[in-house]
Amino acid sequence: MIELARVVGDDVVTTDPDIVAAYAHDQSRLTERGTPVAVLAPRTTAQVAACMTAAHRLGVTVIARGAGSGLSGAANAVDGSVILSLHRMNRIVSLAPANRVAVVQPGVVTGDLRAAAAAARLFYPPDPGSMDFSTVGGNIATNAGGMCCVKYGVTGDFVLALEVVLADGRIVRTGRRTIKGVAGYDLTRLFVGSEGTLGIITEATMRLVSPPHPAHTLVASFPQLAGAGRAVSGIVGAGLTPSMLEILDHTTVRAVDALARMGLGNDVHALLLIQSDGPDAAQSITRIEQLCLDHGASETAISDSADEGALLLEARRLALPALERLGNWLLDDVCVPLTKVTTLIESIELIAARHSLTIGVFGHAGDGNLHPTIIYDEHDATSRDSAFAAFNDITRCALDLGGTVTGEHGVGRLKKQWLAAELGATALDVHLSVKRALDPRNVLNPSAVFDTARIPATESS
Amino acid sequence: MIELARVVGDDVVTTDPDIVAAYAHDQSRLTERGTPVAVLAPRTTAQVAACMTAAHRLGVTVIARGAGSGLSGAANAVDGSVILSLHRMNRIVSLAPANRVAVVQPGVVTGDLRAAAAAARLFYPPDPGSMDFSTVGGNIATNAGGMCCVKYGVTGDFVLALEVVLADGRIVRTGRRTIKGVAGYDLTRLFVGSEGTLGIITEATMRLVSPPHPAHTLVASFPQLAGAGRAVSGIVGAGLTPSMLEILDHTTVRAVDALARMGLGNDVHALLLIQSDGPDAAQSITRIEQLCLDHGASETAISDSADEGALLLEARRLALPALERLGNWLLDDVCVPLTKVTTLIESIELIAARHSLTIGVFGHAGDGNLHPTIIYDEHDATSRDSAFAAFNDITRCALDLGGTVTGEHGVGRLKKQWLAAELGATALDVHLSVKRALDPRNVLNPSAVFDTARIPATESS
Repeated sequence: MIELARVVGDDVVTTDPDIVAAYAHDQSRLTERGTPVAVLAPRTTAQVAACMTAAHRLGVTVIARGAGSGLSGAANAVDGSVILSLHRMNRIVSLAPANRVAVVQPGVVTGDLRAAAAAARLFYPPDPGSMDFSTVGGNIATNAGGMCCVKYGVTGDFVLALEVVLADGRIVRTGRRTIKGVAGYDLTRLFVGSEGTLGIITEATMRLVSPPHPAHTLVASFPQLAGAGRAVSGIVGAGLTPSMLEILDHTTVRAVDALARMGLGNDVHALLLIQSDGPDAAQSITRIEQLCLDHGASETAISDSADEGALLLEARRLALPALERLGNWLLDDVCVPLTKVTTLIESIELIAARHSLTIGVFGHAGDGNLHPTIIYDEHDATSRDSAFAAFNDITRCALDLGGTVTGEHGVGRLKKQWLAAELGATALDVHLSVKRALDPRNVLNPSAVFDTARIPATESS
Repeated sequence: MIELARVVGDDVVTTDPDIVAAYAHDQSRLTERGTPVAVLAPRTTAQVAACMTAAHRLGVTVIARGAGSGLSGAANAVDGSVILSLHRMNRIVSLAPANRVAVVQPGVVTGDLRAAAAAARLFYPPDPGSMDFSTVGGNIATNAGGMCCVKYGVTGDFVLALEVVLADGRIVRTGRRTIKGVAGYDLTRLFVGSEGTLGIITEATMRLVSPPHPAHTLVASFPQLAGAGRAVSGIVGAGLTPSMLEILDHTTVRAVDALARMGLGNDVHALLLIQSDGPDAAQSITRIEQLCLDHGASETAISDSADEGALLLEARRLALPALERLGNWLLDDVCVPLTKVTTLIESIELIAARHSLTIGVFGHAGDGNLHPTIIYDEHDATSRDSAFAAFNDITRCALDLGGTVTGEHGVGRLKKQWLAAELGATALDVHLSVKRALDPRNVLNPSAVFDTARIPATESS
């Protein structure tokens, strides 16, 4: 560390154990984490490059970190590592309304970018649940989703160009400022979602779009889960492009009602929360309401006001807090084909019963991306084991339904073995080849995503 | 070849020089091409794998080919290579309307996929000009665009998953059938646009969307180019999301009028051809018309009928045929930020004057993606040299305006030195590292995209 501090400057390096401990892990549960020896907090790309050059030469493991709001342990330290925190690089470098791009440093909070875009009468759509504190850099590193990606796409769909510091400290620029472009490999997309294993994002050029029309909101309650599932397929199939299409299952509805006394009857077995923000929002939401009624909705409510809409969506906002009152939670993140959403929820009910656990399911029904939330007691080893077993059963189930083990939270430390199961041996080999090509000394986040122990330490070319 | 034929079967290998010659190059002009020794035309993924395993072992260079409609020479042979043509793998494997995905073999003609989607009341948007004969595999390998990508995105935006045969014959699956997913690196996007240098696409899972509403069409003629440019910015800035936003410059308008006698006056210095296909198409196209008039359009015409709309768009369809009557053409493909579209066209007028050449410009104004078309005489060495010099001046100009050297046609053999200029040394190094990781013996299309002579031939790991 003395060597590192000498190279990158004292004001960049912190070794105070109390401070360092606060940077040792993200918000994931039941994930492995080690003890880092220092936190590096550079202010410039040049300082990031100096950090990586030194770390690479010294063979020090580097874990990049945004706000630490991840849920998969991708930012968890390993013993002896340094945490490279990008929180000081939090400047919106430029925002060009006519070309609809914003250039930002990685530590810009996502909500701040959304606000800056709105001030320029533009819209930055990605809205992960953490957007009030998570950062654009972290969102890119995990390719974060959110509620409105059912219409607008995920974070990666808005990244035009990146500046990245490579494992050996070299600085590379990927992508371009134009909307289209096919010059060379899509390195931008390679870094998107790579969870700090291929490089350190130091600047991003983000695409902005026109602001949406005021949203119309619909809540529909269903006495049967299957009806809600058919309604979701019907809405998507009719080409109605809602800007939000969320589902809460029976367990989650019960927990929310217990917390907030919303008067949701015990016979509500699924709640759909839907918004439409196109030029035909009013007509669209009315058609969606009719589809919900056609598929057995017992009650619906519509609003064209933002305030009332927020009230109607309160149940979604309270889903996790309400479940949290029941115990500790372990949040899963799986994604299945649209037609399998209700099958997955039904299977999770069986898994909950088998393990004698409460599992609430909510999430982005319109994408097939659900967040089964397992309630357990973290101080009870048996409960912890059950929770983990249920977690694995759910993930297996999603895979078996033709889905993926992570829709938007990433692999991190939590789902390494599941990534291997999803990819198969050859695809995993290709991943390791790419990792080796970009990080031959394996200094970048070596314990995340996959087991890089298989990568031999070679000299950088 | 005897060895290859023995391994992959006589019916897969053709060495007849007349047939082989027909597969030696794509539709690009002034690009290097060599003489291949054989054409391989496998019918199955297993046969492709056998071809690659044998070629890899024997060190034979392999050039993958779809319909050969490329315009950059990416499918051009090198001496002694074999052409791996995917035209026999032309089956739509499955089309699942409820999950909105189609699984196709690479040799499926793009127009056939669009037709199959339409028959299932769905829509496959990518519409490269070649869609009646180019293939989905070729479109993916070049990340092809088209007219409607201003609203819908390019080919790569519709690829959910790929089956790819690697350089050494191993078969890998990337991506997934779900809409979202962040499990591992985005290898799908790495293969998209890689122009046959990283693997052979043998199957693709494509995302389909709801069919558009019937399009409304607008043609607006401008006495001044600058007004058309401001109209384009105004339309995009107003969030009007046209499904087509094309421009024809003065030279192209003149050529079209000379061919088809459309009565386009000599004072038309730019023509905008616009469609809107959303639920508010009528209202949207009226607002766009008003914007065009506000920015100085001298004449506009609108239609809500498909047949009349096609007539209004006739000038766009005739752009290249009309220019072709003036001589041989060399088609460029550059993309600049939206605000630079008219600057680029004005610069091209100066370049045309400097080289005493006719250069017509048309293309996808709403994306900033233009196709300057240089008219020259291929039998006149001086004219050829001038054409190439103008081509390079245009490409340089696009780069200087913050653009890219290729918006949708790819690098191929035509723009290798320009790719290097756009990327810079470090990004080019990263490209070569990735290429080396996936194709260590450099057997896949080694003369395209970049100079792989820098890659040492190593043993496959």
